[in-house]
Amino acid sequence: MAPSAYASHFSDRNIPFGIASSKKHPNRQAVTRLADSVLFLADLCEHDLFSTVQGLPDNVFARSALNDFAALDRSVFKAVRQTIQDAFRSHGLEGFPRDSVEDISAVTMHLPVNVGDFADFSCSLEHVKNAGRIIINDERPPPAFFNLPIVYQGRASSVVVSGTPIERPMGQFRDKTAPGAPVIFGPTRALDYELEFAAVVGKPLSMRQRLKAADADNHIFGFVVLNDWSARDIQAFEMMPLGPANGKNLGTTISPWVVTLDALEPYRLPTPPRTLPVPLHLDDPDNGAYDVRMQVEVVVGDSATVIGASEVQSLYWTIRQMVAHIVSAGSALRTGDLLATGTVSGPGKGTHGCLLEATSGGVTLIQLENGSTRAYLEDGDVVRMTAVAGGADSGIGWGDCVGELLPAQPYK
Amino acid sequence: MAPSAYASHFSDRNIPFGIASSKKHPNRQAVTRLADSVLFLADLCEHDLFSTVQGLPDNVFARSALNDFAALDRSVFKAVRQTIQDAFRSHGLEGFPRDSVEDISAVTMHLPVNVGDFADFSCSLEHVKNAGRIIINDERPPPAFFNLPIVYQGRASSVVVSGTPIERPMGQFRDKTAPGAPVIFGPTRALDYELEFAAVVGKPLSMRQRLKAADADNHIFGFVVLNDWSARDIQAFEMMPLGPANGKNLGTTISPWVVTLDALEPYRLPTPPRTLPVPLHLDDPDNGAYDVRMQVEVVVGDSATVIGASEVQSLYWTIRQMVAHIVSAGSALRTGDLLATGTVSGPGKGTHGCLLEATSGGVTLIQLENGSTRAYLEDGDVVRMTAVAGGADSGIGWGDCVGELLPAQPYK
Repeated sequence: MAPSAYASHFSDRNIPFGIASSKKHPNRQAVTRLADSVLFLADLCEHDLFSTVQGLPDNVFARSALNDFAALDRSVFKAVRQTIQDAFRSHGLEGFPRDSVEDISAVTMHLPVNVGDFADFSCSLEHVKNAGRIIINDERPPPAFFNLPIVYQGRASSVVVSGTPIERPMGQFRDKTAPGAPVIFGPTRALDYELEFAAVVGKPLSMRQRLKAADADNHIFGFVVLNDWSARDIQAFEMMPLGPANGKNLGTTISPWVVTLDALEPYRLPTPPRTLPVPLHLDDPDNGAYDVRMQVEVVVGDSATVIGASEVQSLYWTIRQMVAHIVSAGSALRTGDLLATGTVSGPGKGTHGCLLEATSGGVTLIQLENGSTRAYLEDGDVVRMTAVAGGADSGIGWGDCVGELLPAQPYK
Repeated sequence: MAPSAYASHFSDRNIPFGIASSKKHPNRQAVTRLADSVLFLADLCEHDLFSTVQGLPDNVFARSALNDFAALDRSVFKAVRQTIQDAFRSHGLEGFPRDSVEDISAVTMHLPVNVGDFADFSCSLEHVKNAGRIIINDERPPPAFFNLPIVYQGRASSVVVSGTPIERPMGQFRDKTAPGAPVIFGPTRALDYELEFAAVVGKPLSMRQRLKAADADNHIFGFVVLNDWSARDIQAFEMMPLGPANGKNLGTTISPWVVTLDALEPYRLPTPPRTLPVPLHLDDPDNGAYDVRMQVEVVVGDSATVIGASEVQSLYWTIRQMVAHIVSAGSALRTGDLLATGTVSGPGKGTHGCLLEATSGGVTLIQLENGSTRAYLEDGDVVRMTAVAGGADSGIGWGDCVGELLPAQPYK
């Protein structure tokens, strides 16, 4: 079988975690992936592959979500990853029992974790400058932007795994963008994606516990690619003063693979310089950023067009700072909580993480490879996001995070 | 033993549900309350009290949260309530096995449900007018106020049961209220409560299912009293443009008792008149409001001062409209989701549901019974909220929803 488009993302330097089922494995269980081969970890556990791993509870891979595994000490998932790497490097795939390995094409991936709370931040200076210029003709970032990572909460129940269709939402919005235009109810006319990177919380933290950014890695299980689908007209009408809600609640897609902190360790980059000093708990002194390149395509039938490519290291705030900020007022962290960066955008054409930016608010149409144009998404469009750490040859990536846009269904 | 202050809230016309444990009942189980007596429902089930109730799964009352029970058909909790009422009306408390009844003073109440998503709305026209006048000297409601119930998501993991202490949060805010004042990090100086009413979701609804306000009762298990603790300075600094986050994440307290839709049936009131027409899915043609009077006190030592009393029926948007709005863009409902009304405030002095309103933003101090004054809450203050349906003699109330404010703990 020819390798899939993403086989190279899953070298033995990656070893991400996910949840899968298949005809041969009808009950969901924890899995990892090597090239196009999916390894069923509960099976491997039964074959005693992990017998030397300290602190691995019985049956933890047989659960339908990774939460119980992700809540363990980082040393445990480090040891599990190392054990898989050692076995593969010694014997290749033949070193694993044949029944515990299936091709990715035979497997259905599921939501990797039960999501507790979903916090979505606004970490990209370029994104807020672009959005400000387009929406209110003022590219100054929001007042608190350089003081703290601005954030809102999304609905955890709207988080779905890659491949789940997204329906064009209905909502109320102004018929024209002018402030006094009539308000109508109907299918959104401005359906957008947002290209985001997100941390999955591992070890939990109780309410009122203190945590500094410098220690936040202890609570991160790994990272996913995230599409924060957004209905711009619904969002614009509803968000004053409490922020976005129904404009974002239509669905949030995440990649099925959680890439661990350990896999990304070689791709740390220096924390970007601060425009303003930060309080001590937000201080992330060294290597808080990651060298991760993301890309978003709009796919129409067989024709894919890259709309934007951007870099996680360009974000003003680091993941560790996001974690330290959200708990600083007393919040708990629960295993499976998601903390997303907000749209990852760069400074110029071709680096925008959403259509709002790429089309200047739906004004400048973008040209697709198949000859058609887009202001915002059309029914049937597929949005495909990908990400790799440290360049195309690193062997570490997320595969893809995709969703097809279905037409709005009217009320009966 | 003398009856407690809230014995009268729990007549046989109420029969709310909660989760409790005690010395005699070390494992949490579902309970109800009659005056000051707590009835342990898993015990009653073992004694076959509910053998005639159709569709009641085995052991559903032995779980540590009400979710599995709340997800059942409304006919089931109707029948359970009726069975308890019939038994009590025939034989009094003596009709129940002695070991399944304990005095409220011997019992610890726990969070009644595992909260999925927590959506907090802004339904009170008086509250938004007051807050607008105080904060930006403009009492016009937000642009979408009359079109839809404005809403933001809170952190579900911050929801705690009555009695849980709340810690004064640390955060960043402007040293003075002037726009250009320096930003500092420290304990909030403007800790407030918000007096709210909230629905607990019963039967779930999948993503992308359509639901009209007129049918929303099918998905409501019951109602709780809710205190949305708010740090006004932290909130003011962070909320542009994505809404409140850390200013609210410090904790959200709910009453332990969920009063059912059936108990409130006699206290329905007409849906208030609309200023603007609404789309069909938000149409709540009749009796969408509830006759529920709420009250908030600040308690210092033995001295309690009523700060505000207000009425749920004064809200512009109904609970059914809140439910229909949040799902209208494709959101799911999960059993245990909370949908809160936002601060319930009336038009005049003594009817304000938060200190921001009662003190005009901390400017006009309020006088407490013990002679001291308050702009915002001080460490050690206890906030106590209560609510009754249909007047003091109805026999239907929520008991209280309390929390003590602890001092901020510094970072080490």
